[in-house]
Amino acid sequence: MGNARTRRRRPRRKSAVGEELRYFALGGLGEIGKNMHVLEYGEDLLVIDAGLKFPDEEMLGIDFVIPDVTYLENNKHRIRGLILTHGHEDHIGALPFVLPKLGCPVYGTKLTLGMVEHKLEEALPAFDADLREVRAEDEITLGCFTVRFISVCHSIPDGVGLAVETPLGTVVHTGDFKLDPTPIDGRLTDYNAFAELGKKGVLLLLSDSTNVERAGFTPSERVVGKTLDNIFRLYKTRRIIMASFASNLHRVQQSIDTAIRFNRRIALLGRSMINNVELARKLGYITAPDEVFLPLQEVDSHPANRVAVLTTGSQGEPFSGLVLMSKGEHRFLSLGAKDLVVVNATPIPGNEKLVSSTINRLFACGCEVIYEQDKEVHVSGHAAREELKLMLSMVRPKYFVPVHGEFRHQVRHAQLAEEMGVLGKNVFVLHVGDVLRIAPDKAQVRDTVPSGAILVDGIALGEMEGSLLKERRELAEEGVLAVSLVVDRDFRVKAGPTVESQGCVHFRDARELYRQIEGAVLAATEAAAKKKERSLEDIAQGIRSRVRGVMKGYVRSAPVVVPLVTLLEE
Amino acid sequence: MGNARTRRRRPRRKSAVGEELRYFALGGLGEIGKNMHVLEYGEDLLVIDAGLKFPDEEMLGIDFVIPDVTYLENNKHRIRGLILTHGHEDHIGALPFVLPKLGCPVYGTKLTLGMVEHKLEEALPAFDADLREVRAEDEITLGCFTVRFISVCHSIPDGVGLAVETPLGTVVHTGDFKLDPTPIDGRLTDYNAFAELGKKGVLLLLSDSTNVERAGFTPSERVVGKTLDNIFRLYKTRRIIMASFASNLHRVQQSIDTAIRFNRRIALLGRSMINNVELARKLGYITAPDEVFLPLQEVDSHPANRVAVLTTGSQGEPFSGLVLMSKGEHRFLSLGAKDLVVVNATPIPGNEKLVSSTINRLFACGCEVIYEQDKEVHVSGHAAREELKLMLSMVRPKYFVPVHGEFRHQVRHAQLAEEMGVLGKNVFVLHVGDVLRIAPDKAQVRDTVPSGAILVDGIALGEMEGSLLKERRELAEEGVLAVSLVVDRDFRVKAGPTVESQGCVHFRDARELYRQIEGAVLAATEAAAKKKERSLEDIAQGIRSRVRGVMKGYVRSAPVVVPLVTLLEE
Repeated sequence: MGNARTRRRRPRRKSAVGEELRYFALGGLGEIGKNMHVLEYGEDLLVIDAGLKFPDEEMLGIDFVIPDVTYLENNKHRIRGLILTHGHEDHIGALPFVLPKLGCPVYGTKLTLGMVEHKLEEALPAFDADLREVRAEDEITLGCFTVRFISVCHSIPDGVGLAVETPLGTVVHTGDFKLDPTPIDGRLTDYNAFAELGKKGVLLLLSDSTNVERAGFTPSERVVGKTLDNIFRLYKTRRIIMASFASNLHRVQQSIDTAIRFNRRIALLGRSMINNVELARKLGYITAPDEVFLPLQEVDSHPANRVAVLTTGSQGEPFSGLVLMSKGEHRFLSLGAKDLVVVNATPIPGNEKLVSSTINRLFACGCEVIYEQDKEVHVSGHAAREELKLMLSMVRPKYFVPVHGEFRHQVRHAQLAEEMGVLGKNVFVLHVGDVLRIAPDKAQVRDTVPSGAILVDGIALGEMEGSLLKERRELAEEGVLAVSLVVDRDFRVKAGPTVESQGCVHFRDARELYRQIEGAVLAATEAAAKKKERSLEDIAQGIRSRVRGVMKGYVRSAPVVVPLVTLLEE
Repeated sequence: MGNARTRRRRPRRKSAVGEELRYFALGGLGEIGKNMHVLEYGEDLLVIDAGLKFPDEEMLGIDFVIPDVTYLENNKHRIRGLILTHGHEDHIGALPFVLPKLGCPVYGTKLTLGMVEHKLEEALPAFDADLREVRAEDEITLGCFTVRFISVCHSIPDGVGLAVETPLGTVVHTGDFKLDPTPIDGRLTDYNAFAELGKKGVLLLLSDSTNVERAGFTPSERVVGKTLDNIFRLYKTRRIIMASFASNLHRVQQSIDTAIRFNRRIALLGRSMINNVELARKLGYITAPDEVFLPLQEVDSHPANRVAVLTTGSQGEPFSGLVLMSKGEHRFLSLGAKDLVVVNATPIPGNEKLVSSTINRLFACGCEVIYEQDKEVHVSGHAAREELKLMLSMVRPKYFVPVHGEFRHQVRHAQLAEEMGVLGKNVFVLHVGDVLRIAPDKAQVRDTVPSGAILVDGIALGEMEGSLLKERRELAEEGVLAVSLVVDRDFRVKAGPTVESQGCVHFRDARELYRQIEGAVLAATEAAAKKKERSLEDIAQGIRSRVRGVMKGYVRSAPVVVPLVTLLEE
């Protein structure tokens, strides 16, 4: 464990009385997604990652969710840099929204920045970002912080963890990691670096909690290669279609290698698959000769046993290659009994139904399908329980904050840390916005910074109010009834009511109901007319409540009533 | 395998030329839910089960889904009986809707009919159903069919499979089953009966496909009892709250037994838990002395280590006991560090997020929580792969139709049957409504009967149109904009436009947008005024398209526009 000696290895003068290190997250706690962490000391502020999250079903019409960065905007002048751990959307996806507001330099490895560049070009073609490439083992100084980049294995190449030297001690952030002993690119998680840091003494560890519920070790990515080999051997005569995450370039490389070994050409399907492979080949993360690739238009006419297709859609995304094929709606490719589809992924929580119905449709096309339940076609990119224990025992932190997980993962990871010897009072299960304040002699959770989820509905609209979402939910559940009415200054009805509905009872079939609504509207108007101070809003209110009353007699719960009362000037 | 000899063991005269046995499903194929099977021969028709299904997320505001029974209504006079295999909602839930239309007698075991009676009383207090109790091993004759009931184990007591003797041979329907060798009530799946049928020769087997993707055997329900025992031993000082399916009475019995053994009293929480335990105790399916039960109001004041709570909510159902507690909204019970919550279930596909957020909230209450990932707190009620193989090898059918599964389960089960020796051409993966026609010498899928999903939105509204659902989805995604306008006979604007929105941009913040909408409305009106034949609908159409055009400049996709054009009579 970190103890008093190691914790104070920095001269006291650097941590003047009252000076403290502050850590908080703006996203990535209590959720898997929109990761964003902040370290502050004195006038210096460091941001780690800027991710997005995909919306829950009940977030109707929302494209994605990003962290609220109000605090960072208000402290813009103090930000010394934004550091990226890897190129997944939940770590870089908020950049197009956040970066223009912060305007700070961005640090990341080559592949990560390659993906960021592409993303920014698409979303903000005119924006000139300050991207600075780093490599594992590099060390950079940002204000009072010295950041060292540590290579880690994950389901995308070129991932890093961080060791941030602060005036109070070292903060280690694992990034998203696993301890794959046989990674495809030979780039191991740098055990030595973590162990050495542990030996010197680590003040605070932030560690990936995603797979804390899984016992044992996460298998090596290489396992999937072996599975693919077996599949290609077994299904010699079939055309083979493989769906996987486009960002899992190691898996893409393995798929390509296997195809080549079995003398098949490769077609790429899906915008992100094509883009990522192009980028990865350009930057040297994927090796494959040009002639192995087959244009998509030629696939259907190529011999089935001489082609393999690499596609997106492993999560059942509505307009992805795999889903279009499963619906028989793809322009170039149609599936049938000659095909084998391999789904190289497990459903991300929330996507189960999408994936499941895609697989059902694939079977209905007559294909054979190999998927989740058939095992070893996918391995996770996150460390399982035993790996997390190893990380804890290498780093031996004084303080521990489990990150990158839902609340239950954080709790389980906290329990694990205590089992591994971290003092219970030094383990913090935090919520987004909670500030962990670390002084030379103690740490406590005090204060919060503004935080929350910003819902993004398309890029043009920008940020979405929560109240709108509530309204959409009501509309979705019950439909809407619009009632228009024209009155004169004396609140005499001059025209209407006119009634239109969407998503509830159809009025052409319900004359009697229409008559009752008309009665309710007239009654509301009369009641409003009797008041001393007349107001159109009174009529509207009356219509809302009386019409809802009428509707409740017809349907279990009444629709949203939208009254439009117009004053006729004479 | 069934062969020519056994298949024709009935005298030929009974199956006159042209006579055939017809089998089809109105629900339960390509889905897990709304099970309903039909057998027809000559003038006789037999219905098996009448279940409901819970809606998908995109079925906004829908309470549940039932089978389309048009075919049965049209052939009402030919129905000889409706047979129930067990009391789960996906087998009996559609009865309140379907039974009044069919008016036939209903056959089921004691517990099943007890649950049906309760359901019908609640939904249709005035309806007088003809319920006829049967027991396993009973044989009843319904037209040309003789039905034998065969005891099977499942996650609800008193389940049965069926052997239906028809003029062309025996049809075996497994019902929902597992081969639990040590069931809580000692009532085994009747292997002998199935094996004997197989020996005599079975024409057609319909078998439960739910767990075909799971290797091995489904563990005995007794395993959960052992786990509960260990948990009670380990968490001596805590209050223990157990959430499970209210219909899994064996598990309820085991929970009660364990509580008694550890000298705790039991409180029941949740309407269905209370109702089911009451019914089960009345009918003798649960044994427990009165004095062991503790009124809910007294739980919070009772010593934590002397009480156990049995609650609903294991699927994260929004108003269930467990969910209310997790939100701190329960009237009598508040959770904290003294509590252990055991979730004795795995999420049903589609409920993953609800369950997951409930568990996160429970952790946030400070409880310890034992759930899915901790293993052996739940076992399935459905046979796994090896059990399905055993069933196939006992029954040795000539024809095989996998039922009770999504399409992929049906395909996998069909593959399994072929591996077990059923001829490929005799295995049928059917869709709902497909008719399997079995003649003495061959079987083929020909014709379909009307079939489909009827969406039910509350009992009062009855059946829901698909078009309404489409409207709701649009409202949900984009919101709504209602525009009212008053014109005179010459299409001169007399008042308005008045604009109200729900779930899209708020107009109080968007004067410029309002001005543009006003312009679009006036332009639409002018355009309509210029036409030779004036129609208010022209104005409405113009408003719809022009206002959507304006909105598209502001949001990525335009809201639903509802125009209300009123003619001012002078």
